[in-house]
This record gives sequence, structure tokens and C-alpha cells, in this order.
Amino acid sequence: MEREHPHIVVLGAGFGGLEFCQRFNHPNARVTLVDRTNHHLFQPLLYQVATAGLSAPDIAQPIRSILADRPNVTVLLDSVVDFNLANRQIVLKETTLAYDYLVLALGGCTSYFGHPEWEAFAPGLKSLTDAVLIRSQILMAFEKAETTPLPHVDARLMTIVVVGGGPTGVELAGAFAELARHVLKGDFRRINPADARVILLEGGPRVLAQLSPELSASAQRQLEKLGVHVRVATKVRNITKGRVDLENGETILAENIIWAAGVSATPLTKKLGVELDRASRVKVNPDLSLPGHPEVFAVGDLAFVPDANGKPVPGVSPAAMQMAKHAARIIEDEIAHPKSASRPPFRYWDKGTMATIGRSAAVAQVGKFEFSGLLAWLAWLVIHLLFLVGFRNKTAVLFQWFYSYIAYKRGARIIVKTDS
Amino acid sequence: MEREHPHIVVLGAGFGGLEFCQRFNHPNARVTLVDRTNHHLFQPLLYQVATAGLSAPDIAQPIRSILADRPNVTVLLDSVVDFNLANRQIVLKETTLAYDYLVLALGGCTSYFGHPEWEAFAPGLKSLTDAVLIRSQILMAFEKAETTPLPHVDARLMTIVVVGGGPTGVELAGAFAELARHVLKGDFRRINPADARVILLEGGPRVLAQLSPELSASAQRQLEKLGVHVRVATKVRNITKGRVDLENGETILAENIIWAAGVSATPLTKKLGVELDRASRVKVNPDLSLPGHPEVFAVGDLAFVPDANGKPVPGVSPAAMQMAKHAARIIEDEIAHPKSASRPPFRYWDKGTMATIGRSAAVAQVGKFEFSGLLAWLAWLVIHLLFLVGFRNKTAVLFQWFYSYIAYKRGARIIVKTDS
Repeated sequence: MEREHPHIVVLGAGFGGLEFCQRFNHPNARVTLVDRTNHHLFQPLLYQVATAGLSAPDIAQPIRSILADRPNVTVLLDSVVDFNLANRQIVLKETTLAYDYLVLALGGCTSYFGHPEWEAFAPGLKSLTDAVLIRSQILMAFEKAETTPLPHVDARLMTIVVVGGGPTGVELAGAFAELARHVLKGDFRRINPADARVILLEGGPRVLAQLSPELSASAQRQLEKLGVHVRVATKVRNITKGRVDLENGETILAENIIWAAGVSATPLTKKLGVELDRASRVKVNPDLSLPGHPEVFAVGDLAFVPDANGKPVPGVSPAAMQMAKHAARIIEDEIAHPKSASRPPFRYWDKGTMATIGRSAAVAQVGKFEFSGLLAWLAWLVIHLLFLVGFRNKTAVLFQWFYSYIAYKRGARIIVKTDS
Repeated sequence: MEREHPHIVVLGAGFGGLEFCQRFNHPNARVTLVDRTNHHLFQPLLYQVATAGLSAPDIAQPIRSILADRPNVTVLLDSVVDFNLANRQIVLKETTLAYDYLVLALGGCTSYFGHPEWEAFAPGLKSLTDAVLIRSQILMAFEKAETTPLPHVDARLMTIVVVGGGPTGVELAGAFAELARHVLKGDFRRINPADARVILLEGGPRVLAQLSPELSASAQRQLEKLGVHVRVATKVRNITKGRVDLENGETILAENIIWAAGVSATPLTKKLGVELDRASRVKVNPDLSLPGHPEVFAVGDLAFVPDANGKPVPGVSPAAMQMAKHAARIIEDEIAHPKSASRPPFRYWDKGTMATIGRSAAVAQVGKFEFSGLLAWLAWLVIHLLFLVGFRNKTAVLFQWFYSYIAYKRGARIIVKTDS
């Protein structure tokens, strides 16, 4: 009987979980989607909120709205507490759910490489709350510098350190440099925001290590043109309040330190009782199911999946969406044809990688093609705008964003205090 | 010497303080504008943020941006701690400022009529933080109702009480009713958001008491058409968590209680040592200066000014802006012609009053003309959109807002948690 009206529980409404709910199509199956927030977040533009280019609701969409036309999907705002895979149950904060199939799409979190104490001094960028916090901190630092009695303004207030030269670090550093040099121009009377120093620290030999050395070099040149101090092969030894100690013995004093160096799977994966990789990701079977649990699938940033070359599939939204679609097809097929269904292995289709560096600057790699500068930026802009528009029919964001790019205005330069 | 380069300190960057800085024009005078936030708030649309129609940055503009083209104006992010009128000094949290002229434009705050303990259970709506908090609370209540195990959903979760039938209360109640009946339609699987009750409590005999009895009746009819339970001549005796006790002995249980009943001047006016009215407003001279302090002006919500008929000038933005302009002219004149300057009394020009009730519903009174329904709503829309667009060149807001009115979508339906 249960097999006839199977219940599929999806944990997480990121790109993977949402794609599953939109793709999965079986008339007699019920789907319950659980997320601890009420909104799906367009993560690739989160750095725009942190750097005052977009406001938080611009890149977030209520999950219920997105799935309003899917009557077989129930959305619950709740948090995962524990798994009971043996009994096919999920323990949430408010209730317990039984499932026939489970899709784990809980995503990742910022990882401090064994130094959780750094988080207090170097926030990461994973949620809207993080982004609004970073935005407020950076803007407050300029305000503090402006009110500091002359003649000596503490250079620390005007220094922003971004740790990590991956796409997020590169995008943040570029956007901060533009904020200081162009957007805030003319706003202050005592300080000159263009005096701000933006320092990008990368432990490896080059930024954007997943791209070719040529594109990495191009990205570094474009960042330096914006005024970013790019320091590769520079490892962090310790972070305390307003202070970064480097492995080479040097110390950088900075009011604002942003951590963009590491991502790991949600710590909840440790409760699954299955094998994990170093970043706490679940080592799944080729069909994305958990070893020993064919009814449980892991998709997106919390899944460790080798691609055709043995390299792990990267933690990007297209990968999460492809995995979700794969799991949806398998589950649909098994419900429709319980006897004859087969489980093909997941194959990742790499659509390319791109990172934006500033207004009209970017790098992109699509298959064998590489491009940088204005052309890459236009490609990036078109792809993200199309996505945003499709995502929430928010044509207004397009106008606003286009306007702020053209005019070097930042519409969301608002400091929100929780204590006032 | 000092008289030749006079220093004018303006406290508060609301409609009054900002208008002063934009209107005041004397080549040799320095102006310092102090505000505790970095943004000017378009207060008339704050209820739209609380009801998820607009996002917080849509109705806020960085003060520094607005005044970027006024090099003689310095903006300080700081809070007023105390006044030293005798020595012409202002004590701020971070510094102390000496002035030749002082413009008090610190605005008002929510007043609980001697019951400050109600604030914890019935938040008011004065700041962006208030608005985002109310929005998150209301949306969370629907989420809680949806996750409550069947069969009994607590009716309290689906009840919203708005206390106070002035413009803010009317606008909030109408927008909440629309949110529940139209915007959230289809979003839930267990509850029906249209079952939500929105109750508007007014202690006096009619809503919008400042308008004519005919317009009040029209506003009440329009609210009731949206499903709002309007209860006039209903006084509140006590408010505790999730509970409103009425003077008539009745009790209303409601997860969401919003206080829109009272406004008073900022409590800082009590430190001025001058005569105040019951709402802590400064009783100013006819020229808006403080009795005994011709160099100190009070404008906007913290000033008590009788109009030509002896009634106090209302706490609305046009009044604040007219007062600011009046003070600016007097100060300019005295600096330019210290011997011959005169001080005309302030005259309030009432441009009319309007309140919006919902999509295509409103009431308006302009001089002897009264109108309601669609025409009033269109007038309200045009005036506010023009203001918004002029205010921040944010054409995108217009599109977004127009779209959400047409499509009954609410773009800013995002619950922001500070603890996640």
C-alpha cells in the first residue's frame, strides 16, 4: 500500500532541493520539502548583497511561491535535528517525518579548516544574514573612520582583507574595491574612501585555481587594475579581532576580515553514519544513493561525486541541479516500474566556470574556450540576469542592477542595526 | 570671526533635517548633519516593508549619497547624548560639537501612553528594523500555523491585531488583509491564509479621525470589503504576550499585535529644559525657535506649532519640510544681514491628507475636495511614486511595485533571522 502513495522527503531548498521538487513528476507521490528558512537563495549573487549592490530580497524568493503550482509538494519551515535511516525517519525540531525516499540537499557551510574560533573575527558568506552583516560592518568601518577625530585616521578602519582566492573571494575583493573607489566617491568629507586597501589573500600559487593559469593571471591583472592587492602563496596562520597573522611572520591589521577560503558540507552529514570525505561530504554510489541505503540520495554541495576524470564534481549550482534531476528520474522510474527500473550512474556536464571581477571585468571558461574582460563580463551578466528574471520574474532587479552598474550607484547601502 | 563662518548643526536626517540641508544655502556657513543611522527613510512607505510589499533598501537612501553634491555639509553617524544650550554645544556619543545655530529635527517615536511594557508584545513601526521584524513575525506565524499538527490549528496564529485607526493603522490593516487573502493564496497546503483575521482597533468613534466623517465611513467600508474587522470605540486595557484585553472586558488572542496608536516626540526633548506638550513636543515660538534660545530651531514631529486655527500642525512629512525650509530662510537671512534680518512666523500650508487602504482603495482630502476609492488610490500612487523616484532615482522600485500591485505578488516576503 505504502508503495502506491510513496512519500519523498527533500531536505534543503537550495538549487538541488528545489530542482528536485520542480523536476519530480509522479501523480501519486507526495513530496515534503523542509528548509530552515522561508526562501530560496540565489547564492551566486550573494556577494552583491554583501557589497551593497543588491538588497537581500532581490536575490531571495519565498519557497512557497516558487512551488505554489505544485500541489503535491508540501513545504515545511523546520530544522533537521537527526536522521533515523534504519527506520526511514527524519527528526525535525517540530515533528518527525517518515519517508519512502529521502533526498539530502542540505548544502554546505563555511569551513575554517579546524579553526572555528576564527569565525567571530572573519565572517563567511553563506546566508542572507551573513551578507547583510558584512555589508553593515564594512559601511560602519567607513563611518567610524569619518568620525575619528583628525589628524590620524586609523588605517585599520580602511582595510578590508578577503581570505581565499576562489570565485567568491575574487568577486568580493573586486566589488569592495569598486565600492570604495567609485560608489562611495564624494560621500565623505574627511576621509577619502579611495584610500581604502582591499587585500586578497590566497594560499595557493594563483587565484581561481580551477581555471587555466592564463585566466588566473588575467583575473589577477583585472583585480590589480581595480586597486586590489592580490597576494598569492600567502597562507594565514592566525586570525584575531582586527588582525591577520600570516605564515611568513607578517601581520595585517584590518577592521574587516572576510573569510572566503573554505566550504564543507553541513555538519549534519556526520550524523548519517556513512563514510565522508575531508570536507564532510557524503561518498555516494555512482547513482548518487548512499551506500547501504538505496532509498536515500545525496545531491549538491554535501555529495562527494567523482566526475569522468576522477576529479570531484565542483560545488556549483549547475552540478547540484543536475544531481537533483538525476535522483528525480531514478525515483520516478522506480515508483512507476518497481520491477524493471534500472539506476544509471550520474554524469556531470560541465557547462563552464566564470567569475566576475568588477564592472565590465570577468573571466570565463566554457569547454575549451576561454575569455576575459568585457566579453566575459557580458556573458556573465546575461547568464545571471536571465537566471534572476526567470527565477522570480523580477524584471525590476534587472533595471536596478543595470542602472547601478552603469551609474556606479549602489542602491542597498543601508546599515541595519538589530539593536535600534 | 565666528559669525563669518557660522557652524550650523542639524540633528536628525528625516524629512525635516534633510530638507534643511538641501535648502540652506550660504557660501560661508558650514553645516554638520548628525543621524544615528546612515540612511534617510521614506517613512510613508514603511508599512509596505512591514507587509512585504517592498524591501528595506527600497525606501531608504544613504544620507551621504543624497548630500554628496553639497560640499559644505558634513554627515556624522552618531547619537545625541545631551544638550548644552547655555554653551551652545551638543554632546554626541563619540564627540562634542559646538554650534552657532542648532536645528532639532530628531522626529518622534512610538508612544504607549504610559504603558512601555506593552512594547515587547506589540511592536510599533518607526524604523526599518521595526518593519523587518514585523514582517518576519507575521510570516513566521503563518509558517507555524502550517507546521502545527492537524487537526487543530491555533486560531491565535492566524490573528493579526492592529491597534490604532490612524493612517498607519489603516494602511497596515489593509495591507495585511491583502497579504493573507491574495498574496499568500496557494502558498500553503494545510492552512488557508484567507482564514486569517485582521482586526483594527480604534479607541475613538471612527478611523482616520483627522478626515471628514464621510471619508472615515468610506475608509471603514473599504477596509471591511478587504475583510478587515474594524472595531471603533474599542479601547485597549492591557496587552500581554499574544493577548489584548479590551476595556469592555473582552479578550482577543493574537500571535501578532501591532501598535499604531500613539506617537510622541523623541524622549531627548526632555533634556532640553524647555516647555513641552503632553507628547513631549517642544513648544516653539511662532518663528520655530526655542523660547529663550533664538539660535535653536525645532522642526518636524518634535515641534508643537499651532496652525492658523490653533490646531497643532500634524506630524506629517510636508509639515516637517515646510518648517525646515522656514528655519533655513531665517538663518540664511540672519547670516547675510545680521543687523536687519527679521523673523516671520511659520505658516503651515496643508496640502491635504490621504491614506491608502489596499490595491485600488484609498481616501484623500485636499482642501475642500474629498475623494475615495480608485481615484484616491491613483492620486496616492502617483504622488508617492513621484516622490520615491525623485527621492532616489530608483525607477526600478516603480516597476517592481507596479508589478506587485498588478499581480498581487509581494517581492519582499523574506524572513530574516538574526540568529542563523
